[in-house]
Amino acid sequence: MDRSRLEAFSDGVFAVAITLLALNLTVEGPGHGRLQHQLWEHRWSFAAYLLSFFIIGIIWVNHHVLIKSIALVDRTLLFLNLVLLLFVVLIPFSTATVAQYLPVPAVSAGPQEDLKVAMAMYSAVFLGMSAGFGSIFEWTLHGDHRTVPLPPEAHWPARLRFVGGSSVYVVAIVVSLFNAIIAFILIALVAVYYIVERTPASPAAPDSPGSNAPAD
Amino acid sequence: MDRSRLEAFSDGVFAVAITLLALNLTVEGPGHGRLQHQLWEHRWSFAAYLLSFFIIGIIWVNHHVLIKSIALVDRTLLFLNLVLLLFVVLIPFSTATVAQYLPVPAVSAGPQEDLKVAMAMYSAVFLGMSAGFGSIFEWTLHGDHRTVPLPPEAHWPARLRFVGGSSVYVVAIVVSLFNAIIAFILIALVAVYYIVERTPASPAAPDSPGSNAPAD
Amino acid sequence: MDRSRLEAFSDGVFAVAITLLALNLTVEGPGHGRLQHQLWEHRWSFAAYLLSFFIIGIIWVNHHVLIKSIALVDRTLLFLNLVLLLFVVLIPFSTATVAQYLPVPAVSAGPQEDLKVAMAMYSAVFLGMSAGFGSIFEWTLHGDHRTVPLPPEAHWPARLRFVGGSSVYVVAIVVSLFNAIIAFILIALVAVYYIVERTPASPAAPDSPGSNAPAD
Amino acid sequence: MDRSRLEAFSDGVFAVAITLLALNLTVEGPGHGRLQHQLWEHRWSFAAYLLSFFIIGIIWVNHHVLIKSIALVDRTLLFLNLVLLLFVVLIPFSTATVAQYLPVPAVSAGPQEDLKVAMAMYSAVFLGMSAGFGSIFEWTLHGDHRTVPLPPEAHWPARLRFVGGSSVYVVAIVVSLFNAIIAFILIALVAVYYIVERTPASPAAPDSPGSNAPAD
Repeated sequence: MDRSRLEAFSDGVFAVAITLLALNLTVEGPGHGRLQHQLWEHRWSFAAYLLSFFIIGIIWVNHHVLIKSIALVDRTLLFLNLVLLLFVVLIPFSTATVAQYLPVPAVSAGPQEDLKVAMAMYSAVFLGMSAGFGSIFEWTLHGDHRTVPLPPEAHWPARLRFVGGSSVYVVAIVVSLFNAIIAFILIALVAVYYIVERTPASPAAPDSPGSNAPAD
Repeated sequence: MDRSRLEAFSDGVFAVAITLLALNLTVEGPGHGRLQHQLWEHRWSFAAYLLSFFIIGIIWVNHHVLIKSIALVDRTLLFLNLVLLLFVVLIPFSTATVAQYLPVPAVSAGPQEDLKVAMAMYSAVFLGMSAGFGSIFEWTLHGDHRTVPLPPEAHWPARLRFVGGSSVYVVAIVVSLFNAIIAFILIALVAVYYIVERTPASPAAPDSPGSNAPAD
Repeated sequence: MDRSRLEAFSDGVFAVAITLLALNLTVEGPGHGRLQHQLWEHRWSFAAYLLSFFIIGIIWVNHHVLIKSIALVDRTLLFLNLVLLLFVVLIPFSTATVAQYLPVPAVSAGPQEDLKVAMAMYSAVFLGMSAGFGSIFEWTLHGDHRTVPLPPEAHWPARLRFVGGSSVYVVAIVVSLFNAIIAFILIALVAVYYIVERTPASPAAPDSPGSNAPAD
Repeated sequence: MDRSRLEAFSDGVFAVAITLLALNLTVEGPGHGRLQHQLWEHRWSFAAYLLSFFIIGIIWVNHHVLIKSIALVDRTLLFLNLVLLLFVVLIPFSTATVAQYLPVPAVSAGPQEDLKVAMAMYSAVFLGMSAGFGSIFEWTLHGDHRTVPLPPEAHWPARLRFVGGSSVYVVAIVVSLFNAIIAFILIALVAVYYIVERTPASPAAPDSPGSNAPAD
């Protein structure tokens, strides 16, 4: 299997998943009150859409950088990649679910509990995605899987940075059981960080000198 | 990151968004009156579908021409491109919303107001798309981002033509608060203009001589 | 614009449209009678799905052969291609509509009339697709648009074969106003013909000698 | 037709189908009981989603390996490939149907019967996909369709392994008429086998020496 078809299929899945996100955005339409009120009631849905959109975007960017560093494509990589995509494809579902419960964050104890469950699931899907991505990264560290191997002393720092990334989602799961909104903000902060900073997944951006060095 | 995968992902998003547009087209089916009446009542939905289809088509054409002029792909470009795609993906939603309110443009004051809000949102999504596209264009003007740089004296004319393009959507937002149908026609005229004329985004069509000159 | 991105975008639209077709296939689920009865009541939906699937498949095959013969991509071609895709994207809608009315072909005069309208629209979308495809073919006949030009004496035979193809859909529109099922069978026969025979759109299959000759 | 566009279109269909699977995942939302109960009631839907996801993933991997071994693309191959894709596109429908009936496996005789029909259909769609894939494989055995021909003595072993693969789905259809859950587990075991082992469809993995040898 050559890299290009792995990329083409993954890009297709990323593109469909990121576009299906917006399918969740709907207003009830005529006869359900003023449109601006309907839109305002869905404000959290829009926030969840926005956050999920950029998280899929970030993982797509990092996916590309990681795949570009790979020397060969074997069956193991293909199935690790499928695990990553399994969670990417779940993002529209977890986003829709959390958006269903986000409009009522302060109403009663019942929905509040449900919102916490929804937010924990929302975080868990990102954790699965992150773990899938981490497993591909781990795979690149072994054998002659990279075109330019990472020196052994750089393995643990790189892994730690990965654990750091994934562990935020673990924290978000725990936090969401206490306060869903804080968990949501936490996930959003991680996304902003990944957009502004270079990510652990991409040891060096393609436009930088020394593009295969482990650190940036 | 090489240009081809940026294009492949963007093409995927454009293709899915343009096809999802038609998901909004549905008739109520048997038991809801004669089919031709149902279709006639959705005439504005079809018009909105048609307009959104060609606007996505135009931005796809211009996106290709713009990306082709780019010498390198960095993280900034990737995230500017994500901003553009964020609004492209919202087009099926804004089209569905405006189509929900378009069937009743002359009934009563309430829905009339809602139609204005829907049309303003419809225009605003195009403005966001246009601004995202403009930010990519601005990015190409700096550093050595273009394979053939634009001479400095051509920057402002090119920007002005962009502001001109985006500003029509600003005008459409304002107009839609007074008369939604006129705003709709205004946006349609811009689309016709972009189909017939060469756009600011594509200083020269690929089949013309002097293909990287700023003016056409 | 190079050919490859035109193909990539078109392939994306074809792929999404052909997959969205199956979204129309749903059964009511538990509580709506035995599943085999539900499936049997949807037998015409499945037939419509099958027919539309292969018609999109055929146009995709022919589209590829036609685009491969093209020497350059200009704005005119891009917008002719968009017109073709506009109708391709409408196929899931026209298929869903005709499938809604096909379960009741023999019940009463009212739905019968609606079925005729639905079938006429189903045929009309294919006519639009066919006309869009024909306009791209016409475009290839002029200027230096083909890598290997068609000799002038071959233009009219080729066009006639096109008119022949499109004209079946015109006949189907007329027939559907009298008997929708016969129109459906007529469209199915055209699809079978195109699968078995080489199509006018593909003067020669890529695996044959003399691959750019007008006749097969 | 060159191989790359066949791959691009197929990848698009695989990517959309695998992503649409998750569209079937929805919870009823606020007002329908605690969210964790809703999720628990959909546990079989999630299992069906998971299984279908990996089966599409496996067929995508095998499709790539098979297409890579092909020397030329003719109309016959294109239409055999369309038959394969026809069933791939049906997988979200058959998965949604079986998931609708899976939540009530032990309630009453009526739904029990329906679950059996749904599971038989679920198996039948995989059988169709498998048969479509087998027909492409059969096509590669004839003429000069492979870049490296398979020796004649390897044809029957390869075919038998195919019949073996497809025949599990035949068994699953029969079993599902007696016990749907056992049929489901049977299909899942096949998927696990294909992930762990190399498949008949891919005589040799791309990263192994002697990559075109019939046996692994």
